[in-house]
Amino acid sequence: MPIYNHLLMREEKLMTGNSFGQLFKITTCGESHGGAVGVIIDGCPAGFEVSESDIQIELDRRKPGQSSITTPRKETDTIHILSGIFEGKTTGTPILLLAYNTDMRPEDYADLKNVYRPSHADYTYLMKYGRRDFRGSGRASARETLARVAAGAIAKKYLKEKLNIEIHSYVEQVGNIRANNIEDNLITAENIEANIIRCPDQITAKKMIKLIEKVKQEGDSIGGVIRTVIRHVPIGLGEPVFDKLPADLGKAMLSINAVKGFEIGSGFEGVSLRGSQHNDPFMIENKKLKIKTNYAGGTLGGISTGENIYFRVAFKPVSTISKAQQTVNLENQAIILEAQGRHDPCVLPRAAPIVDAMSALVIIDHYLRHKAQSA
Amino acid sequence: MPIYNHLLMREEKLMTGNSFGQLFKITTCGESHGGAVGVIIDGCPAGFEVSESDIQIELDRRKPGQSSITTPRKETDTIHILSGIFEGKTTGTPILLLAYNTDMRPEDYADLKNVYRPSHADYTYLMKYGRRDFRGSGRASARETLARVAAGAIAKKYLKEKLNIEIHSYVEQVGNIRANNIEDNLITAENIEANIIRCPDQITAKKMIKLIEKVKQEGDSIGGVIRTVIRHVPIGLGEPVFDKLPADLGKAMLSINAVKGFEIGSGFEGVSLRGSQHNDPFMIENKKLKIKTNYAGGTLGGISTGENIYFRVAFKPVSTISKAQQTVNLENQAIILEAQGRHDPCVLPRAAPIVDAMSALVIIDHYLRHKAQSA
Amino acid sequence: MPIYNHLLMREEKLMTGNSFGQLFKITTCGESHGGAVGVIIDGCPAGFEVSESDIQIELDRRKPGQSSITTPRKETDTIHILSGIFEGKTTGTPILLLAYNTDMRPEDYADLKNVYRPSHADYTYLMKYGRRDFRGSGRASARETLARVAAGAIAKKYLKEKLNIEIHSYVEQVGNIRANNIEDNLITAENIEANIIRCPDQITAKKMIKLIEKVKQEGDSIGGVIRTVIRHVPIGLGEPVFDKLPADLGKAMLSINAVKGFEIGSGFEGVSLRGSQHNDPFMIENKKLKIKTNYAGGTLGGISTGENIYFRVAFKPVSTISKAQQTVNLENQAIILEAQGRHDPCVLPRAAPIVDAMSALVIIDHYLRHKAQSA
Amino acid sequence: MPIYNHLLMREEKLMTGNSFGQLFKITTCGESHGGAVGVIIDGCPAGFEVSESDIQIELDRRKPGQSSITTPRKETDTIHILSGIFEGKTTGTPILLLAYNTDMRPEDYADLKNVYRPSHADYTYLMKYGRRDFRGSGRASARETLARVAAGAIAKKYLKEKLNIEIHSYVEQVGNIRANNIEDNLITAENIEANIIRCPDQITAKKMIKLIEKVKQEGDSIGGVIRTVIRHVPIGLGEPVFDKLPADLGKAMLSINAVKGFEIGSGFEGVSLRGSQHNDPFMIENKKLKIKTNYAGGTLGGISTGENIYFRVAFKPVSTISKAQQTVNLENQAIILEAQGRHDPCVLPRAAPIVDAMSALVIIDHYLRHKAQSA
Repeated sequence: MPIYNHLLMREEKLMTGNSFGQLFKITTCGESHGGAVGVIIDGCPAGFEVSESDIQIELDRRKPGQSSITTPRKETDTIHILSGIFEGKTTGTPILLLAYNTDMRPEDYADLKNVYRPSHADYTYLMKYGRRDFRGSGRASARETLARVAAGAIAKKYLKEKLNIEIHSYVEQVGNIRANNIEDNLITAENIEANIIRCPDQITAKKMIKLIEKVKQEGDSIGGVIRTVIRHVPIGLGEPVFDKLPADLGKAMLSINAVKGFEIGSGFEGVSLRGSQHNDPFMIENKKLKIKTNYAGGTLGGISTGENIYFRVAFKPVSTISKAQQTVNLENQAIILEAQGRHDPCVLPRAAPIVDAMSALVIIDHYLRHKAQSA
Repeated sequence: MPIYNHLLMREEKLMTGNSFGQLFKITTCGESHGGAVGVIIDGCPAGFEVSESDIQIELDRRKPGQSSITTPRKETDTIHILSGIFEGKTTGTPILLLAYNTDMRPEDYADLKNVYRPSHADYTYLMKYGRRDFRGSGRASARETLARVAAGAIAKKYLKEKLNIEIHSYVEQVGNIRANNIEDNLITAENIEANIIRCPDQITAKKMIKLIEKVKQEGDSIGGVIRTVIRHVPIGLGEPVFDKLPADLGKAMLSINAVKGFEIGSGFEGVSLRGSQHNDPFMIENKKLKIKTNYAGGTLGGISTGENIYFRVAFKPVSTISKAQQTVNLENQAIILEAQGRHDPCVLPRAAPIVDAMSALVIIDHYLRHKAQSA
Repeated sequence: MPIYNHLLMREEKLMTGNSFGQLFKITTCGESHGGAVGVIIDGCPAGFEVSESDIQIELDRRKPGQSSITTPRKETDTIHILSGIFEGKTTGTPILLLAYNTDMRPEDYADLKNVYRPSHADYTYLMKYGRRDFRGSGRASARETLARVAAGAIAKKYLKEKLNIEIHSYVEQVGNIRANNIEDNLITAENIEANIIRCPDQITAKKMIKLIEKVKQEGDSIGGVIRTVIRHVPIGLGEPVFDKLPADLGKAMLSINAVKGFEIGSGFEGVSLRGSQHNDPFMIENKKLKIKTNYAGGTLGGISTGENIYFRVAFKPVSTISKAQQTVNLENQAIILEAQGRHDPCVLPRAAPIVDAMSALVIIDHYLRHKAQSA
Repeated sequence: MPIYNHLLMREEKLMTGNSFGQLFKITTCGESHGGAVGVIIDGCPAGFEVSESDIQIELDRRKPGQSSITTPRKETDTIHILSGIFEGKTTGTPILLLAYNTDMRPEDYADLKNVYRPSHADYTYLMKYGRRDFRGSGRASARETLARVAAGAIAKKYLKEKLNIEIHSYVEQVGNIRANNIEDNLITAENIEANIIRCPDQITAKKMIKLIEKVKQEGDSIGGVIRTVIRHVPIGLGEPVFDKLPADLGKAMLSINAVKGFEIGSGFEGVSLRGSQHNDPFMIENKKLKIKTNYAGGTLGGISTGENIYFRVAFKPVSTISKAQQTVNLENQAIILEAQGRHDPCVLPRAAPIVDAMSALVIIDHYLRHKAQSA
């Protein structure tokens, strides 16, 4: 009986690590081809207005099939609220959000069940768990990020409405095409959503789209960088030792599928500077303390300074391509893989709402932790 | 009564985030100028040989005053084992490690107690906690990393002796000087320790040292990059959703003082590649599965592949410099700060053992988690 | 606008403590009158057969309206599995279980929304959260235990099938009527289910039922004791310091609505014995070590001995009664409360499956923790 | 090589469960015969006055050799503060408390290293960990409670000084001798400390002491009950689902060595009452809401009502006795054990400060959790 006839995990194996956050804590569940993808949010403040459409708007930015440069696969990703919200407001009790799976075609994956797709999790899953879910990767599927975006939508709305904290993630780079002159304080949801690549520099956006279309025609894929700016974060969020704000933001981003790098403030370029160049001088302006430059990226000692937080997240090119590739099957035979199927030539436009969501989850959790310590 | 007469934290304020890890869990304590810096390790496997000198050897690589390019401040950083080890072996019960503080000169900081040092945590601490410990930054001091290195020394030794996992962190870059042609499998503790900057490329090392000496003479500081290679990691470490191995490594590194970036595998450069270039082909060699290239950096889907794990960590230039700087005092007056005192012109040589330690803590924790799930 | 027009929790208030367990970890959600009651199980071993009917059988033992001595309220409590189980087997990924609420009659509670019902959580909820859910107590409702029973059903089945661990909770006492001579090793699911009170001593059961019928006629309620015997627990479960097995069992039971006491082994009666009477002698029988008596109740030093674990759980009389009671309304006026509505005269028969479930959750969690440490 | 030549735990074995609390979180370390017993407190509010003598006063109530009815073993149990307190005040950072071990006589245990002492943890430890620490039980030793009392002393002092919460644990029962008519509001530290058994009823105290002296002469031991009253707890502490206040108090007490039972409010006796008797009526007195009776024991729905919290904790007779006992050695031979050594004939007088400490740790943790949610 061949090993791939079985789904996910050898008997007895557990999986852990399905929760994120300490006070605003989410636990996600659901496979790409099971009954539903869901999330319980434990610790959402009470009395806050949330409707299904508030969540849907973010899910629609993540969903497949939204434009000519994303995968043509169709999922409506309709969200249902099953507990924790009454008469349009959070009650403070755990919130359950669910999206039922609809467009499941496990038959699409039949050809793949005997193959390790290069740079996919197929191989490590099989080695770790003794089995794997060939129906679209199971828990390793990026479909799991739906639950993050749903929970993050509530966090993002809370931060905006209660604290005026604004989170804007946009595509800064696709391949070698990079948008360089975007002023942090001029970024809006509108100029990000003005094009299908989600880059607020409309001229560069066109170049990016052109590149992706070319890559798509070649049956190939391409990577890129999301840049995020978080405005109006109050001073004081973040813990001084292990749970520094950049540490938790970094973990959040590096837990997203396909992410290979994270840098905050001056990042990797900053290492070439002298301290005298890189230090952000304090100054007085209109009798108030101001920080002149912001190489720090909005945190000092792991704690927010009140300046804009900005960081960059590197996404590798999508592993699924149509081009022929050298690989190995489960019988350890070298083979050539020529996948057809439906895939994203570039994950970046759909990644922006995911980075938004993870940012919101980190910030709201640290906001609640900070309030809790100050109580 | 001026605010700076009080130490750390407004009444009632708590601090959180002093623990790291899930099964091999450390909780650290101690201020830079209190009685001691310490750590309890909860969850170290029993029956493992550990002596104080095993730990001391790593602490000596971190300690101040070790060479002409580190701060001249003197601390012996002598470690004491107070529980959990009997007759030279771990008993499986919590291990308490302590280093008493000796070279405390709070008077050195007298001039600073009324000032926000640029790019230090002084300002955010005071805003968050209502007070700050002017005696060398309290818990924000990099002296806290002593506890990490002590605990990490046990983890690193365990991984090497029990599993042959080797962790080598070295200085790859100082300012713009970068060592490029270091073969991952030829790095040894010996060629890292062969020079005071801890770069295994001896020619580049000399250039780096020269640059640091120049920067030191100018009373300035400079940043750099630590590159880490972890060899012989078994397949299967890391969890598929939030606790991906790169996510936990990233959080570990971004929780170290002065770190501004983390990238694993192809990192930020990889975004320019096509999927067909970046995907690491599986192949058969001597009847065994092999992965041809390693753009992934040793993990797929957040789980280790068995290939070398490698990553880069960006350190900003040290914030403490002797050059005159514009800043503000606690009475909100613009002033010029001319610190003398003792400081590191470049933190990189002392950072290598800290990155080693945090790497070891992440790997041993995921190793134990993986074993636990498979039990 | 009167305070009771608002549901549960003042704005900003959070609720915590909705998770239980460390490796086999459950997070529950749902109010008595919201859309659904649900639970995510994180950490269930893979490859284990579970069907909805395996869970339903335990829920049916808990559900209202099951006999003449329980509340006549009707809920089908039909369970749905939405993730983590495929082709009848657990996959190792998080399991989502849901029961949609059907028989909601918030209008039944209209008279109560302005009143503190004596010995209910109405008062403490309102004081803690600033609001309360008058529609059947919200998260304070015993309806929340549905989620525990659903998750516990999987744990109980696993323990029985994989390890032959048998958990039997039965009604030992109602009011002053106590069944005394029940031999631990002769208890079976069948003799517990042989009567509607769930006491395996059929003669005493009849007396208990008669007492409850009398109490019901009087519009009153009565308390009782559940006794649990767990057979075939392997030696070694439980941690020696804070997470002793009796400590975690005690917490589990004391977290059930209406529980006021927990004792294991000799319990409160054992305090009168001398050590020479109470110590359980070790002996050799058929060349194997045996423990002669079992005053310990199956644990020593917090760790299971392999002998039967047995404990008793005290339930106070149900707070909802039809008799007239003195109380106070939200305007702080003394009033007389004469509730009609539907209530259980005695919660004990429905409590047995809840105690079973909590027992199973504690034992499976400690079993996995023990395996994890030994890996 | 006989198994008892090795200390505690088979190679690779871990121990877990050394932490307690969520916001005011303690992690303890230290064996009865290692270098020290210690505790890190993470989450103590800043700005609170604590001296070593504040802690010592509670440790002296716990220490051996304090009176004619406790073990004659001598330990000074001198406490040292090594971090987190500066100029007499907490700084908000982790607090490290240490007591070095001094009166270690492992030779006293030489005769015991080959024997399972009845009702001790020797057997379960050896079975669980593959080894045991024969030098006074290692982590299973009640010496570990020293760390709890040290941490609890800070919590208890905080609760009293900041919130006027008073915690009084006293010996209510020794064997069959029970003090019945002690008025909760008349209990004071002074009348508890007025005699060596720590029972505020001075006449009953004498009878208890006489009984213990008799038991001691016989080389035997006896159990008893600690009753605790907590006055002035604010309304609202405790979480409604798993972390109910009685659940966390119960776990805390059942994690103390030798505890076999816990009951709060009416406890086991309450099960015989009718709801109409047991319900605590709300009433208006001087225009304020009052609760007439307090069968609930100070909590409703797991949340404090503001009334006195009271509970009882059952301690079994000490397992170490001088009388000859039947047991088995590690070669599975039946033997007669005649221990001499030094032991407590009754643990109750030394248990009172331990129950105080665990009570304080639970209450302060829930106080901080409640404040945190309300922030």
